[in-house]
Amino acid sequence: MNKKAKKSNLLSTRVIIDKIIPCLDNGRFSARCAVGHRFGIEAVIFCDGHEILKADILYRAAGDKEWKRSPMDYGGNDLYRGSFIPSEIGPYYYRVEACIDRYETWRSALVKNIKAGNASTIDIQMGLQILDSSNAQDFTKRLEPYSRKFPTGEDIPVFLALLDDPLLQSRLRADWTGAVLSPVDLPLTVEPERAEFSSWYEFFPRSHWKDVAERGNLQDALARLDYIAGMGFDTVYLPPIHPIGHTFRKSRNNTLNVTANDPGSPWAIGNEEGGHKAIDPALGDFDDFAALVDKAKALDLSIALDIAFQCSPDHPYVSEHPEWFRKRPDGTIQYAENPPKKYQDIYPFDFECAAWESLWQELKSVFTFWIGKGVSVFRVDNPHTKAFSFWEWVIAEIRKDHPEVIFLAEAFTRPAITAYLAKIGFNQSYTYFTWRRSKPELEAYLKELNSSELKYYFHPNFWPNTPDILPEDLQKGGRPMAVQRLILAATLSSNYGIYGPVYELLEHTPLAAGKEEYLNSEKYEVRTWDINREDSLAPLITRVNHIRRTNRALQTQDGLLFHPVSNDSLIAYTKRQEDNLILTVVNLDPFNAQSGMIDLQIHLLGLDPEKPYHLRDLLSDADYVWNGWMNYVELNPHIIPAHIFSISSNKEAAP
Amino acid sequence: MNKKAKKSNLLSTRVIIDKIIPCLDNGRFSARCAVGHRFGIEAVIFCDGHEILKADILYRAAGDKEWKRSPMDYGGNDLYRGSFIPSEIGPYYYRVEACIDRYETWRSALVKNIKAGNASTIDIQMGLQILDSSNAQDFTKRLEPYSRKFPTGEDIPVFLALLDDPLLQSRLRADWTGAVLSPVDLPLTVEPERAEFSSWYEFFPRSHWKDVAERGNLQDALARLDYIAGMGFDTVYLPPIHPIGHTFRKSRNNTLNVTANDPGSPWAIGNEEGGHKAIDPALGDFDDFAALVDKAKALDLSIALDIAFQCSPDHPYVSEHPEWFRKRPDGTIQYAENPPKKYQDIYPFDFECAAWESLWQELKSVFTFWIGKGVSVFRVDNPHTKAFSFWEWVIAEIRKDHPEVIFLAEAFTRPAITAYLAKIGFNQSYTYFTWRRSKPELEAYLKELNSSELKYYFHPNFWPNTPDILPEDLQKGGRPMAVQRLILAATLSSNYGIYGPVYELLEHTPLAAGKEEYLNSEKYEVRTWDINREDSLAPLITRVNHIRRTNRALQTQDGLLFHPVSNDSLIAYTKRQEDNLILTVVNLDPFNAQSGMIDLQIHLLGLDPEKPYHLRDLLSDADYVWNGWMNYVELNPHIIPAHIFSISSNKEAAP
Repeated sequence: MNKKAKKSNLLSTRVIIDKIIPCLDNGRFSARCAVGHRFGIEAVIFCDGHEILKADILYRAAGDKEWKRSPMDYGGNDLYRGSFIPSEIGPYYYRVEACIDRYETWRSALVKNIKAGNASTIDIQMGLQILDSSNAQDFTKRLEPYSRKFPTGEDIPVFLALLDDPLLQSRLRADWTGAVLSPVDLPLTVEPERAEFSSWYEFFPRSHWKDVAERGNLQDALARLDYIAGMGFDTVYLPPIHPIGHTFRKSRNNTLNVTANDPGSPWAIGNEEGGHKAIDPALGDFDDFAALVDKAKALDLSIALDIAFQCSPDHPYVSEHPEWFRKRPDGTIQYAENPPKKYQDIYPFDFECAAWESLWQELKSVFTFWIGKGVSVFRVDNPHTKAFSFWEWVIAEIRKDHPEVIFLAEAFTRPAITAYLAKIGFNQSYTYFTWRRSKPELEAYLKELNSSELKYYFHPNFWPNTPDILPEDLQKGGRPMAVQRLILAATLSSNYGIYGPVYELLEHTPLAAGKEEYLNSEKYEVRTWDINREDSLAPLITRVNHIRRTNRALQTQDGLLFHPVSNDSLIAYTKRQEDNLILTVVNLDPFNAQSGMIDLQIHLLGLDPEKPYHLRDLLSDADYVWNGWMNYVELNPHIIPAHIFSISSNKEAAP
Repeated sequence: MNKKAKKSNLLSTRVIIDKIIPCLDNGRFSARCAVGHRFGIEAVIFCDGHEILKADILYRAAGDKEWKRSPMDYGGNDLYRGSFIPSEIGPYYYRVEACIDRYETWRSALVKNIKAGNASTIDIQMGLQILDSSNAQDFTKRLEPYSRKFPTGEDIPVFLALLDDPLLQSRLRADWTGAVLSPVDLPLTVEPERAEFSSWYEFFPRSHWKDVAERGNLQDALARLDYIAGMGFDTVYLPPIHPIGHTFRKSRNNTLNVTANDPGSPWAIGNEEGGHKAIDPALGDFDDFAALVDKAKALDLSIALDIAFQCSPDHPYVSEHPEWFRKRPDGTIQYAENPPKKYQDIYPFDFECAAWESLWQELKSVFTFWIGKGVSVFRVDNPHTKAFSFWEWVIAEIRKDHPEVIFLAEAFTRPAITAYLAKIGFNQSYTYFTWRRSKPELEAYLKELNSSELKYYFHPNFWPNTPDILPEDLQKGGRPMAVQRLILAATLSSNYGIYGPVYELLEHTPLAAGKEEYLNSEKYEVRTWDINREDSLAPLITRVNHIRRTNRALQTQDGLLFHPVSNDSLIAYTKRQEDNLILTVVNLDPFNAQSGMIDLQIHLLGLDPEKPYHLRDLLSDADYVWNGWMNYVELNPHIIPAHIFSISSNKEAAP
């Protein structure tokens, strides 16, 4: 830019758009919003002097040429707020436009000066000049008489009403002459609804569910979809279904004394029957898979596949593409390591190898292969141990043709890395919820997720358990703890999931004291489950998922507010979307009844503090009437450790 | 960028530099650091997998071609920290470079594997491969024997020591093959010391100081510099010294019934004797001004001029350059307004006029004119009522040739605008300190200044009073309040100032009840002051400025920490720079003695909590010995409302 151009560019910015939120690394990364949800934007906008400003959001789907507009409201202290609702899945862009509202500046000054007896025809002539250079020139005629003879007496209200004419105002609102446009197309990824609101159920198809004589397969999995859909889940997640390696295969409880009966870990992917694009023949074939997908579709379930980019030593890639793996000096392939531990059953890909381009294309083709088979959700195993640049590239590539695909990052690692994976494209992320137990821990963690920049791109997915993690609390807290953790996950996060039937059947024995792994884990052996057991949590889970499906407040990460309780074992929080207001109270003590006073911040909830308000407990269908801020709650964990209240508005409906 | 280039660019970034702090709007704005002060940089850096990383800051003065390097230390959770000390005033740039430390990754894995009895010659061969492709190839010879025969027994420590060889380590530290460099030259403005540490004294030269028969002038001002320097100030700020307009001149107390004796407000700039480049003949001529500057220089004082870009109707610009002003429809020039108020004695420039380029150049020449007369500090009047783009342009233009110049923004306006003016170039800013009275207000405000992004570019300058502002507390709190506010300003902010001799002579009568203006303000009339009055605060001010000059902790905005006190009328805080530790305790109640227990956070102050520590009150020279966290303080405001303690380290000196 030459000096002259730079200066006139400077001058054009008498109005300053100083800060737009969200704006991730100056537009390097995308904000996120689910299709049909409201996307909010804030901007700090000001100019020198006393002029009144106006501002619009400009937004468009990437394929559209024209911007759409949405007005921003002034919220004081130079902050403007606006929003829009994206109507299609895929990339969008947004900017902010602002300019001096010269007419409104003049009009409000004139009104003050008239009140102070301080105005003359010259002041009105100034307004005519403004109108004359606007898109409302035709209005000058109506004002002109007053610019010659200043209005007096009854003329004044007539004149002031003229200035306020709605047609004039709307014409001027559309006049953006001399406006400043924020310089960067800020990207927004509009995601499918299930990126923001989903209920996951993970299970191992190969296990027995009593209904099966031998080990289960994809046909059995199909038969189980009714049970899963019946509980109200919408996403069914299967661990890897590919052929499993033989070399260094693990036996039960992750030991090495393998026998012919040991099925092996599904994450040791690949053998002579194929790799990431094959199905373990013991589970079935592609016809079985197609039938599974069809049945899921009929039940409005998404099938989520596990993508674990690693190979067993028997994977066809190892012999066909040795160039994709790192070699040790003796010519053997480098196995996975975390010194001094060695994982000789797993060969990691070398994302930096000379042939990285063919490797990356092949891995991309794994996604497109399964998308072709009807899969639109992928749970990605340990993405943080593969090159971040690969993920950024491959997710963007897939999204070009398939913006409806959802990627869940399983990265139980340090916070900066977890956040970065979301920033480069993963729609959802596993979280530390699994280990957040106490009230201060939960409140601090939710504050981090919902109040920091994370909220613009990081969709948490809360899991109380996984095949790898049986947290200490579930080992020791019995049924009340399992109920509590399920309700916390399902009401604190719009995305949550459980690994079942382990979860609803209250499996809770660890591999050993002090360990977080399950004893006799399904990762290494075929288990048998009786899902019809009387103590199953399935009826409760069904109820909780029904509450989620019928309450908009629980379907987004926004609108969470914690409320003080006089007892540290009780946690209370509301979620709110417009008229839908849900108050959840959980007793975090799995052993004892706890009671206390909730200090409900009703002034922040749109309730009239002068009137009683009505609560219905959606878990028990009991009705309550509360008054004012302080109200009493008591929860016995052996009955049920939580309330999920729906609170009805106590304000008069607008006439 | 084509697709191929983009992909290989992605691949080169297996190491991710996710966040650099400070980084203002992606490098659009500069961070600030005073010359000779330490400039700290943080970065979030990580890579996939378990590799060990290393990182350096790269930095250079804008005129240098070569980067200098400063190593960053790992602080856990992917955060790296480093710093450097810029040695010259002017623009600098910095980046961060990071790469996988392949040797160290290998070495630490090998050590673990040797301890676990899990290593072989193949592992050592892998290290030889790494060394062979490094800049320490000559070391391969020394390790080779071990790659054929694995070390045992006494060979092991010999071998491990070889791996740790300091020469080898330093050679490898300098090897940045395959490193990732952060993509943007982030700008740093290195400022003169007085941008960060300064003590200002403002006075009206035209007033009598008892030593002058008639009204004062620049020669009298010169004579007063000894008094001001004697109190320990380093910057002398004069209100505008230009000819003053006659038209609509204001009389005493801002009234309109002007008489021939009324000197007028210095901010109504310009008459037939000249404008912004002229000196009011009543004050003297350019010889007087040169003498004043010379004397100031001899006393190591900076002269700060007031730049108020506005004109009286009599300013030569008005007749010579009517194109720089906005016209009303009747052809008259638009005066300043804040409807319904009209300021007919002031014509604002029209920064958007068609002739804006010649206007901006002329205004720039006002700065260069006074720089040519020896001025290097400018206090800019109401910059927020002039185009921001003008300030950004003119400050950058001036800095090109005069990086030593300091600009102070007098913008008592909304927070976003105050911050933005600093971001676009003003070195220092007036603040809301003037109205922050209570402990929670002061603590919250300092937290905002020192803990938000503001700390990287906003240098506060704390003023307890100005010619426009006599805050309510100074009207009512008597001498204790004046002492308290001075000490708070001087110890909470490294830049502070007072408007005197009004301040040290305890002038405290407002124009009217409920008003913040001074009665009989020097803005509109010539006053008489007896600076030798016995009750003058000058001796106390001298002591406080001496404490500031001799304690490094008070010379920077960094290192402030508040400490709980059991009495809300007592505020306590430390400032610390390396070994220099200052604890200030102020009684905010101007009427009553207050006492309480200070909960000094000694674990954060580098003190040994097991031993007593010694405090000297630098105001009274009294000595104290304290123990542990809780200690008693009592302050009688009628004696002195504050302690300024120097705390000596109670740790053993390193041998």
